[in-house]
Amino acid sequence: MAAALYGNGSSTSGGGGARGRGKPITCKAAVAWGPGVPLSLEEVEVAPPGPMEVRVKVLFTSICHTDLSAWKGECEAQRKYPRILGHEAAGVVESVGEGVEGLAPGDHVVPIFTGECEKCVYCKSDKTNLCGTYRVDPLKSSMVYDDGTRFSVVDQPSGQRRPVYHFLNTSTFTEYTVLDAACAVKINPEAPLQRMCLLSCGISTGVGAAWNTANVSARSTVAVFGLGAVGLAVAEGARLRGATRIIGVDVNPSKFTKGKEMGITDFIDPNDICDKPVHEVIREMTDGGVDYSFECTGINDVLREAFLSTHDGWGLTVVLGIHSTPKMVPLHPMELYSRRITGCVFGDFKGKSQLPDLVDKCVNGEVNINFDGFITHKMPFSYINKAFRLLEEGKSLRCLLSL
Amino acid sequence: MAAALYGNGSSTSGGGGARGRGKPITCKAAVAWGPGVPLSLEEVEVAPPGPMEVRVKVLFTSICHTDLSAWKGECEAQRKYPRILGHEAAGVVESVGEGVEGLAPGDHVVPIFTGECEKCVYCKSDKTNLCGTYRVDPLKSSMVYDDGTRFSVVDQPSGQRRPVYHFLNTSTFTEYTVLDAACAVKINPEAPLQRMCLLSCGISTGVGAAWNTANVSARSTVAVFGLGAVGLAVAEGARLRGATRIIGVDVNPSKFTKGKEMGITDFIDPNDICDKPVHEVIREMTDGGVDYSFECTGINDVLREAFLSTHDGWGLTVVLGIHSTPKMVPLHPMELYSRRITGCVFGDFKGKSQLPDLVDKCVNGEVNINFDGFITHKMPFSYINKAFRLLEEGKSLRCLLSL
Repeated sequence: MAAALYGNGSSTSGGGGARGRGKPITCKAAVAWGPGVPLSLEEVEVAPPGPMEVRVKVLFTSICHTDLSAWKGECEAQRKYPRILGHEAAGVVESVGEGVEGLAPGDHVVPIFTGECEKCVYCKSDKTNLCGTYRVDPLKSSMVYDDGTRFSVVDQPSGQRRPVYHFLNTSTFTEYTVLDAACAVKINPEAPLQRMCLLSCGISTGVGAAWNTANVSARSTVAVFGLGAVGLAVAEGARLRGATRIIGVDVNPSKFTKGKEMGITDFIDPNDICDKPVHEVIREMTDGGVDYSFECTGINDVLREAFLSTHDGWGLTVVLGIHSTPKMVPLHPMELYSRRITGCVFGDFKGKSQLPDLVDKCVNGEVNINFDGFITHKMPFSYINKAFRLLEEGKSLRCLLSL
Repeated sequence: MAAALYGNGSSTSGGGGARGRGKPITCKAAVAWGPGVPLSLEEVEVAPPGPMEVRVKVLFTSICHTDLSAWKGECEAQRKYPRILGHEAAGVVESVGEGVEGLAPGDHVVPIFTGECEKCVYCKSDKTNLCGTYRVDPLKSSMVYDDGTRFSVVDQPSGQRRPVYHFLNTSTFTEYTVLDAACAVKINPEAPLQRMCLLSCGISTGVGAAWNTANVSARSTVAVFGLGAVGLAVAEGARLRGATRIIGVDVNPSKFTKGKEMGITDFIDPNDICDKPVHEVIREMTDGGVDYSFECTGINDVLREAFLSTHDGWGLTVVLGIHSTPKMVPLHPMELYSRRITGCVFGDFKGKSQLPDLVDKCVNGEVNINFDGFITHKMPFSYINKAFRLLEEGKSLRCLLSL
């Protein structure tokens, strides 16, 4: 059986039903063969889910900067090819593996790149959303259960079948994917999947940073450094909490139009300021500094500006950017005495336990996240390389790909 | 009138009563004439308190490492001499200046080096204890009201009277001192002043870091780096919160005996470990790391060890040490994603609003801080240079000086 080729030990053959081990599925996937090489749409075989895994039919996926930098080969010590990128998606469970509870074929799900087993000491702590087993790991390229892959492709011209590696616990640039059950969140089926797709990464990360990590309060002031989808999601979270002033900072002023639509009240293009640092401008605008700042760029110097732009005494900076250089935190220890700084992953949401409630609130209108504001483009899945280019050129926030 | 010589503009002469401007007092003080020069016990004139100031008869004072490093001339860009050091004390209000409310002659008080005006935007925020006007400022050497000093001394051999500068809003190495009312905390007169003296800095800083900043929980694990009085006060705070394991780290193993008496459960002398970093030893001892670590040394490399000694996911490091080198925070931004770090001043206590309640709880037995455990020596005030040596040699925790 094909699955045994790619797994290490999961050779048990099962029936063809949805419960238990099913049959491999052959489908289209966008395969990355090397850094910067355009993704290649080809037929892959997707093994049935192993124990504690689910196979999901992906209906929508979108592209995040982390996919872009992984595609380019940035930030990664070990790069395994071929592999299937993608981590922001929504779909329907096709089949479930042995031992899976709480998920069944037909369930609507969003994949989460940082899973939640709900049993480990981390998952039982209310102070972290980093699961001990299924947390985000950019170096991981196989499944937890047997360290094998669930994808394979026929290599040309040898005709040999070879494994295709996984990415960020998710690998969503494919019609079917296999996820650890800990990385599949069952959501209300009334929620539109093309919107829920964005909860899989960008919106949860930004909104959660504002709500869970910073706990932004009503009538507060906020500065967001970097107005990509995550930065705008931070602004959205702050707006929903009733922040009165939301200052957006970006070197690409074309982002300001969208930012204004999304509720950002003030904009700063650092290139327009020559006589003082950005933090001084923000302090002048806000009578001493903002209550909260969010660093969504991954640039070390910007981190310092974000920190210094907050109000002395109670300012809090949340770091969301992926810092890929070896540069250390650009702050002096004594600076930690009057301002606070913290990082967060996935907006400090515990995906399995907290996202379903958020989705319910979106469905019943209790929470009004402007999902559509983030979707700047819609295309068929086959246009994925075009979607990558749009993001790389700063022309899209989220391009929704339909499978 | 003498006061006018040293103040800038506070020349209003008043009656001799306790309310309103009184007369100068001549008393003994330990005057610092230059970095490292033994303190000189001499007669100083203490002007009556200006508006919003109180004059306090100091009954007990003790010496903290900050006095030691200030005496040596460390950590200071501007050094003004002569001056009166000291910031940990307890005493009785002798007279109050114009406009002072809530303090009257005879009141028992502890000075606080980081004041609380109770009116500014900082004092009204529940997120900081750093007052906008009276916060700790190591460079400040005069009174807020008129930028003048309240001490003067006759210079020999000229016979001219010259100002003596203040230190850390307090200057307690003198029989009488003048404080901003914002820096004098009225406490329950039933509380023994020789113990309350330690609330003026060391114990509040350490206990507060455990209670207010870290919010140490019952059955948690703690590591304290640096077992001076502040480090032991952290341990005391953790013990009172019910922490089950408190690991003390110090390169001076003679501190372990006292530490054991004070409830520290395990000790590490980094000099005894040659094959691995301290944080690895702590992680091995605690199944992954402590819940909270406290950096009480001011040494940059120790800060990193303290950070890494906490448990991945929820570990919190509190920085209390005075970092006097220009070295930046020795952490990578991505390390902020799985552990937290913060600094605190005066244990995040708002001195005027929160210490009186703590004192009441100490008096009625609700809180059992082991004050006496910190007092390793008692001497008359005139032995102050000996007390400095004991601290410098690591032989004392707190030497209580009686005036």
